[in-house]
Order: sequence, then C-alpha cells, then structure tokens
Amino acid sequence: MSLIVQKFGGTSVKTLDRIRNVARMAIAEHRAGHQVVVTVSAMAGETNRLVALVEGLGPSWSEREYDVVVSAGEQVAIGLLAIAIESLGVPARSYLGWQVRFLTDSAHGKARIVNVEDAAIRKDLAAGRIVVVAGFQGMDEAGNVTTLGRGGSDTSAVALAAALKADRCDIYTDVDGVFTTDPNMVPKARKMDRIAYDEMLEMASLGAKVLQTRSVELAKKYKVPVRVLSSLEEGSGTLLTEEDATMEKVLVSAVAYSRDEAKITVVGIPDRPGLAAAVFGPLAEANVNVDMILQNVSASGEADLTFTVPKGDFRKAMVVLQQKMQSLGAKEVTGREEIAKVSVIGVGMRSHSGVARRMFEALAKDGINILMISTSEIKISVVIEEKYTELAVRLLHDAFELDRPAGDRVGG
Amino acid sequence: MSLIVQKFGGTSVKTLDRIRNVARMAIAEHRAGHQVVVTVSAMAGETNRLVALVEGLGPSWSEREYDVVVSAGEQVAIGLLAIAIESLGVPARSYLGWQVRFLTDSAHGKARIVNVEDAAIRKDLAAGRIVVVAGFQGMDEAGNVTTLGRGGSDTSAVALAAALKADRCDIYTDVDGVFTTDPNMVPKARKMDRIAYDEMLEMASLGAKVLQTRSVELAKKYKVPVRVLSSLEEGSGTLLTEEDATMEKVLVSAVAYSRDEAKITVVGIPDRPGLAAAVFGPLAEANVNVDMILQNVSASGEADLTFTVPKGDFRKAMVVLQQKMQSLGAKEVTGREEIAKVSVIGVGMRSHSGVARRMFEALAKDGINILMISTSEIKISVVIEEKYTELAVRLLHDAFELDRPAGDRVGG
Repeated sequence: MSLIVQKFGGTSVKTLDRIRNVARMAIAEHRAGHQVVVTVSAMAGETNRLVALVEGLGPSWSEREYDVVVSAGEQVAIGLLAIAIESLGVPARSYLGWQVRFLTDSAHGKARIVNVEDAAIRKDLAAGRIVVVAGFQGMDEAGNVTTLGRGGSDTSAVALAAALKADRCDIYTDVDGVFTTDPNMVPKARKMDRIAYDEMLEMASLGAKVLQTRSVELAKKYKVPVRVLSSLEEGSGTLLTEEDATMEKVLVSAVAYSRDEAKITVVGIPDRPGLAAAVFGPLAEANVNVDMILQNVSASGEADLTFTVPKGDFRKAMVVLQQKMQSLGAKEVTGREEIAKVSVIGVGMRSHSGVARRMFEALAKDGINILMISTSEIKISVVIEEKYTELAVRLLHDAFELDRPAGDRVGG
Repeated sequence: MSLIVQKFGGTSVKTLDRIRNVARMAIAEHRAGHQVVVTVSAMAGETNRLVALVEGLGPSWSEREYDVVVSAGEQVAIGLLAIAIESLGVPARSYLGWQVRFLTDSAHGKARIVNVEDAAIRKDLAAGRIVVVAGFQGMDEAGNVTTLGRGGSDTSAVALAAALKADRCDIYTDVDGVFTTDPNMVPKARKMDRIAYDEMLEMASLGAKVLQTRSVELAKKYKVPVRVLSSLEEGSGTLLTEEDATMEKVLVSAVAYSRDEAKITVVGIPDRPGLAAAVFGPLAEANVNVDMILQNVSASGEADLTFTVPKGDFRKAMVVLQQKMQSLGAKEVTGREEIAKVSVIGVGMRSHSGVARRMFEALAKDGINILMISTSEIKISVVIEEKYTELAVRLLHDAFELDRPAGDRVGG
C-alpha cells in the first residue's frame, strides 16, 4: 500500500462542484488501495478577499493578526472537502495547522516549517480515512497561527509528504506539468516528463510560477518524489527527481523569465573596503532582498554598483539609498523598473561548455542588449530591457532546440 | 481597576467601519482604566454564507466538519478587530477558542462549555492589551473544533466573564435592553432597568430572542452581572441580577411569545401505566424535544395525549408517531402548526396569587380560546391559535399595566 499526498490549489476548489471533483480524485486513489492525504488552498478569490479586508483597516497591521484572518480561507476549504468526500461514501477528517501540529518559526506571513507531526494523521489513515489538511498555515511554538506565504500550500504538501515518507506527492495545478518555458508565451514549449530538483529550484526562483521555491527546496532535501500534473486533464505530468546520466547529456532543459525585478545603480562611489556592506547594510535593514550584483571599478578609483531588487521594493530601496548617498560619497543613484531577467537552466551545464556563448550569440543576433549577467553551475541569467522579454525567450527556446525531444537535439 | 467583558454581535461588525466603531467602544473602556476583553460574532451574513456552502454539498454532513467550516467566520472577525484596535493606538491580541483553551464537550454544533482557562488572557490584560476572543467556538478534549449553537457568542461572553470573575459583562445588541415585551409588536413596551436571572431565563426559553438561554443559565450560576445594551445609542441598558424585595412586589414583569412550536395530539390510547413512555420514547430517540404536555383520560378509560414540539421537528414527529400508532393502540394522531405560546413572567408570582385568573380573564374577554396551559413558579404559558398572538400579547401587556413603571401599577 502506497501513501500519496495530493495538493489542490484555489482554482481546483473554487466552487462546490470543483470541490466534489477533488473529492472524487482523492477517492480514486483511495479505492486503488492507497492511503491518501489531501492538502488544499482556500477557494479561489477568498484569500484576496480576506487580504482586502485587512488592507481596508489601515496602512499597517500586526502580522500576527493578518495570519489569523487570512488562514480562515483554508479552514473553510478543508471542512467542505471532508464533507464532500464523506458524502461520496469514504470516511474523512480535516486537520488545521495546529491540529496536525504543523510547527513553524514565528515569521508571520512567511513562516518556515520546523516540524510536522505525523502521529494523528497516521492513525486516521490506518483507520481507513482520507485525511484533509489545511495548506498555507501552521502554528509557532507559542501557539500563534502562522502562514507560509503565497503559494505556501505547495510547501505544506511537500512537508507533509516528507514527514509521512509518502511514496508520491502529487501537486495538481491548471497546467499539464512543467514546461521547457511558459507555454502561454511560446506555444512550441514542451512538457517535460522529468526534471531534476536543482533545475526546478532554479526555475522556481528565476520566475517560473509553477511551484513555490521553498517547496522545491524541501522536496530536494528530503528526496520527496513530487509530481506536477493537471487537475483538469489526464496525464502523467512532470516528475521532480534527482539528476541522472540522461539529464546530464542535455545542455539546457528550460528557459525561465521574470518581470518582477528592478535595477538600481549607485554611481561613482570612492572604491574602498567595506563599500558593498555600506550599500547593502541599509537595504537589508529595510528588508529589501538584493539579487544580482555587478561592480565596475574605473581607472580613477571610483566604483559603480548595480544590482536588482524585487519590483515591489524598488521605491523603498531608492529612498533608502538616496538618504545614504552623502555618507557613501556617491555621485548619483539611478534606477530602472522596465527590465526583465531571462535565464537558461540545465544540470548538463555542469559538464558542458559553450552554453553561454550560444546564449549570448542568439540574443546578439536580434540586437538584444545584455545589461547584467549572473551565472551558477546550472543556470545563466541575463537582465535585458523588459520590452524584449518575449523575443528573448523565443530566441533562446529555439537556439537550444527545446521544442524537440531531448534525445533529438543537435547541441546536446 | 475593573475587568469588563464586552460582546458584540454580527451586525456590530458587519463592515470595516462598524468594526472600527467597536474598536473605539473597547478603547473607551480601556482608556477609562478598565481591563477589557471583547468577544465578537462573525460579520453579519458570514455564518449564513458558510452554512449555505455546507448545505450545498448534500443532504447530510459530519457535524465535526460543519463546525470547522462555520467557525471560520469568527476567526476573521477577531483578527480584523484586533487590527482595528491596534491601528487606533492600543495594543491588542486575538484568541481563537483553542488558543484560550475554551474547553467544551464534543456535542458539535451545540457544544456545552466545560472549562475556560484564564491564564493567557490575564497575562495579556496585565501587559495592557485589549484581548479579543472569538465567540461561538471552542475545542473538545480531543482537540476538535466545536461550536456552541446559534447565539453562542452570548454564552462565550458570559463564560469568559465567569472565568475571569469580571466586574461586568456588557452584551451589546441592536436594542436598548430587555423590554416588557417585544417593542416591535407593542410600541408601549417599556425597557426594564433590571431583571432577575430567573425571569430572563424564562423569557429566553419562552421565545424572547435577546439572549441565548444558555448564556443566562451561566450568568445565573456564576452570578455574572450581565448588562444588555445598545451598540448604537447611549444608555444604561438592562442589568441581569439576583432577585430582591423590590422585584418580588411586582406581579408580572414581562410578556413573551413564541411561534416556533407545533401541537400534536395522540387520540384514544387505552390508558395504562407506561403510556407516556411509549409515546415519548420514540420521539426522544428521534431527537425531538417535547415541551408542554397535557393528558386527558375519559370515563371510558381512553386517554388523549397532547403536547408541543419545535415547529422544525413537527413533520418528523408526526411520521414517528404514525408509525407507532398501531403498537400504541391509538385511534388517531392529529397535529397543528398554526399555534403560538404566550407567557407572562415574574418572580413576584412566587408570593402573589391571582395572576392566572387575571391572565385568563383578559384573554377570555376578547374571545381568545386557550388550547393548553403550563405553569412554573414564575411563569404561566398558554397555547392559543397563532392568529391571536399579537392581540394576546397586547391584552396581557395592558392587563398587567406593563406600560407603567413597576411602582405605579395597581395590581402590584
């Protein structure tokens, strides 16, 4: 008997009919002889409604109370799903975060999971019940309600699968699986049958919205066999797995993009030790995450520091730096929001050279100027003008022949 | 320093503006130097919305899961109220039922309170916080979410006041207090400054909707000084208190009515020991509560048994009894839904006679036929044709001069 964790997002439980459909999908696995744990998000639109109520009360609020309000959506969804499953003849029981004991730290609104207890759930599974667990929510050591951040239900599902040592964690979504790039942008994009954890991790953090980054980190850490598949159509989806020899033969597996960043340059700072700390210290204090960083030092001994920040933090970061300009001795702080980050990703890069050249040539051929470059072992990211995003993604998808099955590609 | 528990119903927190208004009322008591605990219901309409979702899933459901769904409304309300209070400058913290440890039995949907822990709340109060507690909800020994039934937030407030030994429990509502009868039916109805627990208890169970019956039972048991007052207008409301000599001088304090019952007669049963058990046993098994009972035995040794049941259970009760007719040896089972129960209430009845005569004369004078009578130490109830309800209430209100201040009444 296998143990399967299923996760359904808000659109899958948007109406009572869809909730009944999710119930049927859980029951199908149960009838096939598996133990089934289902995690769900709030009914689509509900979390936004609750956030709007909080925002209607003023410019700021206690994060603790925010979590109390927004976690109510998942509470409604699990009760309804448990009722739907039972009305189709299979015993079920719902669990809130605190009932599982889904222990997190106290970082309200973006809490990290510390421990998930499995005893109560195992007892229910052994008794033949389908267990329904609220996604997105947990509790901290002091007994406060916490939430895991947007997309947190993915992480809930993977954490449950890890704690229960599940044989599979099926993440149901509105697409068939993970694609070589966004199929809405590139119709030729191919669904991948398998993807390495590391590749998925890069894709998630580089802008692909299919899974929350943290859920992939957890899956990798605990080797959880996660499958991403459609709740609307039959299909085997995409399996997240450890990398193997076949994957390493492929140069590039996917192209990701993000329009969620902005670029800031601090111009003409006298170059000295501690310069970066002087610039990034105040940003860290203001809770601004800095991503790509580029530093040029001119012959005159002056440095320009360029970096990207989340678009939502752009204005805050600009204000912070303009206040610091004088103490930094900088000449100017400039910023630009109309940028995009485009990345090629593949574990094959570890053992193959020439990916960067091929990437830069493809972009240069159509006159796309590269503003910044950042690399890791298995990805290359470039920052370009936002207006070229779609063109760049298509060019790169073609250049690495991602529309062809991996074995048929010329360059590997 | 006094400790005050305030309770606000769903209409008082229906919009963000009203939530801010509740926040201001809590803060006013806080600024006056009191420790303040606020209990709230779900935003008006929310509980109905959640119940409709459950009902949309089928003809029946697990009461456990029902409680998970419907208790989400209060969760949203307490988070929003805590945020509203803090945005007005006073620290606040919200508590869900399980966070207080609001322990109940496991009778989902109508759970009874077993114990309320006060340690965490006292700590927050001592730290200068206003504490906001979810009404209507608790948890049982096994850690399941429970709810206290419609109107349960009144009971939550009184239970909190009892546990915290509060100096006052202020129940805010949309009327000025407790009236001598329904002011919508009798414009001359007077607001009472004080009412004895026992009188309020009879009023609540005889149909007055101002407080949940259980909340009054609790208030009486723990001598909680409950005040019922308007959240919309200034005023001292009505204080629930133990009876004293002044109250005992008054013959009748109030007139209550209910249209929520139906009448059933089992006709022509051979009279024998165990007859009542044979009739009421099956009804108890079907969870039908029987209220007033009347038994006539004719000269021929046949008995007619007449009793009232909640209107919502009428059809179920009729079916149960028709199935039992043969084994009971009864000739017929008849029923009637168009009835009303009208009651006069007053602790003064304990020491005064003549109330029944005055009541029956008042009704007879206008030709209102009495179908059943039931009495206790401090109330007399009659069942009449439903169409006479309003007339009967007005006649009795006049007959006992309830439109005059208690001291000015001729009959006492």
